[in-house]
Amino acid sequence: MYIETISSEDCRFKLEAGAGSDAVHSDPEYSFAVTKLTLDAGVTGTGLVLTMGRGNELVCNAINLLSLPLAGRDIENLMSDFGRTFRVLADDAQLRWLGPHKGVVHLALASITNACFDAWAKARRVPLWKLLLSLSPAEIVSLLDLSYLEDVLDTTSATELLTAQISSRRTREDVLTAGYPGYDTSVGWYQYSSAQIEERVRRSVDAGFGAFKLKVGGSLDHDLSRARGLRQVAGDKATIMFDANQQWNYPQALAACKELAALAPLWIEEPTHPDDVFAHKSLANAVAPVALALGEHVPNRVIFKNFLQAECVKFLQPDCTRLGGVSEFLTVSLLARKFDVPVVPHVGDMGQIHQHLVLFNHVAMGHPRTFLEYIPHLSTHFVNPAVVKDGRYQTPQEPGSSSDLI
Amino acid sequence: MYIETISSEDCRFKLEAGAGSDAVHSDPEYSFAVTKLTLDAGVTGTGLVLTMGRGNELVCNAINLLSLPLAGRDIENLMSDFGRTFRVLADDAQLRWLGPHKGVVHLALASITNACFDAWAKARRVPLWKLLLSLSPAEIVSLLDLSYLEDVLDTTSATELLTAQISSRRTREDVLTAGYPGYDTSVGWYQYSSAQIEERVRRSVDAGFGAFKLKVGGSLDHDLSRARGLRQVAGDKATIMFDANQQWNYPQALAACKELAALAPLWIEEPTHPDDVFAHKSLANAVAPVALALGEHVPNRVIFKNFLQAECVKFLQPDCTRLGGVSEFLTVSLLARKFDVPVVPHVGDMGQIHQHLVLFNHVAMGHPRTFLEYIPHLSTHFVNPAVVKDGRYQTPQEPGSSSDLI
Repeated sequence: MYIETISSEDCRFKLEAGAGSDAVHSDPEYSFAVTKLTLDAGVTGTGLVLTMGRGNELVCNAINLLSLPLAGRDIENLMSDFGRTFRVLADDAQLRWLGPHKGVVHLALASITNACFDAWAKARRVPLWKLLLSLSPAEIVSLLDLSYLEDVLDTTSATELLTAQISSRRTREDVLTAGYPGYDTSVGWYQYSSAQIEERVRRSVDAGFGAFKLKVGGSLDHDLSRARGLRQVAGDKATIMFDANQQWNYPQALAACKELAALAPLWIEEPTHPDDVFAHKSLANAVAPVALALGEHVPNRVIFKNFLQAECVKFLQPDCTRLGGVSEFLTVSLLARKFDVPVVPHVGDMGQIHQHLVLFNHVAMGHPRTFLEYIPHLSTHFVNPAVVKDGRYQTPQEPGSSSDLI
Repeated sequence: MYIETISSEDCRFKLEAGAGSDAVHSDPEYSFAVTKLTLDAGVTGTGLVLTMGRGNELVCNAINLLSLPLAGRDIENLMSDFGRTFRVLADDAQLRWLGPHKGVVHLALASITNACFDAWAKARRVPLWKLLLSLSPAEIVSLLDLSYLEDVLDTTSATELLTAQISSRRTREDVLTAGYPGYDTSVGWYQYSSAQIEERVRRSVDAGFGAFKLKVGGSLDHDLSRARGLRQVAGDKATIMFDANQQWNYPQALAACKELAALAPLWIEEPTHPDDVFAHKSLANAVAPVALALGEHVPNRVIFKNFLQAECVKFLQPDCTRLGGVSEFLTVSLLARKFDVPVVPHVGDMGQIHQHLVLFNHVAMGHPRTFLEYIPHLSTHFVNPAVVKDGRYQTPQEPGSSSDLI
């Protein structure tokens, strides 16, 4: 099956008042820069990346520029060593200047890559998680671009890491029937009042969730008051996390993390600028044992490598709609496995693709079964929206990566 | 004077065969994403950022989106605390997702910022260097966004740093008549043959230059052969530098730097991936006393801060067409001064703007008088091309930042 057409589509969705808001992103219009592939056999592929609205068209235009070399490629041939193509596209001799490996051009690469994986799984008529689990360690590694990781992870060690997990895979496969646990981010947006948060947490508890995230990053008093409110309504046994979305500078982060620690969060997320490896390292040392989490704004495997080498992040949150798609997400997951740090994805795709990827990470890489972020605001726009029952993502059975939009 | 119109222009220039080529950028089409401002008094402003051709239109489109809040602003009022506006634009609640502070949106911010500085200097009818030198330390600091630098540089310490240099400024002002030394990058592009390099170095020596850069990043034998050739033709007393343009992975960089050290380069530039702070740190330790240089692909002050904290770079090469324009260039120059690392800009603007900025850095910040990169390929396209005599940039006298294109 050959790729006949590649195009982009600019899809934007209005959210209910306050939904999606955080300390930095005050007026989000959740948007997807979509890559659409058609194969000659009538098979299609859909690739997603998230933006906040304005500028979504820049990513769409970049998709059009960057995807040109894929036209006419046989999908099986392309995916037999996708890592090579990934590197060719990422290092386009002219477009590379606009990154490299970050920003609009890398978001475009993510969307293109995700469309290729979606089309491939549909061509094989299996869900993405099943396709990935069917591949040998060498086949998985050939999907990846490991360049600039040679000092910590090369083809041989990546293959060995996957091979070492084969014998114990069966002990983890029950997740495919049990479902993957979720945690609820949609209870605690920044612009929600205390009353709204309380009502939503109660509903979420009734729906089977036991873990909740709260947006912080305002004045410390305001943050603490909201955090205490969440702890109270969720109960002492609930898992809660705080997310500052990069709002704090280092001194503010230091002060806030020390105070918020009293509420016993599982993690404090994006405490400061996402490029500042050293500030996160200093902060992690200063507020230990409080755990820091980040990743949704880390654009590539090289920066993730640095964060892992700095040993400052206890929960890694890569996103296949920020990194260069499914391929680089798997690369970062391997890196994290090597450094023994759990992967808890940020879900720029609203969990649609990541519900496949966490299954693969757990079963094939031996990553611990943690939980997957739940943000249902766009569920009515998907052909096959993620199904969450009793607080657990139910394993998708339809072919592809669950990315098709209505 | 009020900003009446803001628009963008996509300008691309063909280069002679081989010119501009390096190990990574094999077919550059030097292009500017230009911001055009008009003030009500007929004054105009031109802002430049460099790209390699394809995708230049993405930056132009981003300029159109990002610059909307500037329409109608009084130029003096805007520039009286430009740092505040810089932060507002950099943190646009929707466009920020596409960076933050990197990639296409940050290149757009650079172009917009540079246009504001150009228009401001023209409105005051002075060259940019003269305008900057006329400002008080507090006025300079108010041009800057120091957020996320609080752990090493805040408003107070930045002002103090500038104030401390005032008493010694006169000892450095002779640079304004003597001219600022240049070094010649245009002799050693990657695709130039040994014979071409030899001929160009001889011509460059005749023109007064004593420092030359060579592009490397091929096979080690090839690189060494070319490096020896350059040393031979330039002579033992000449200053030479090697530039790998990020081509090497860490093991390759380690091997190459050790071998190239025998040719006594002043620095080895961009030895590996520009995001990899830890690899540069390991490399700097492993090949000491060989000096590393980088900066042309470091997009913001936060990552520069990390490189400086890692103490792995001996020559910092920020570029006001990669960073968020003149404003963030000055911020990074202050950071570098604080860490006592010289600033030797990369000239994405072909030196037109940076010839002003190195004068300010030397006179007002006390940065050492090093040399400024010389790349003359686009000189016929500028209204006031940089004038280099006896290997020295002659201080520009026309109002503005010398950015206007014919």
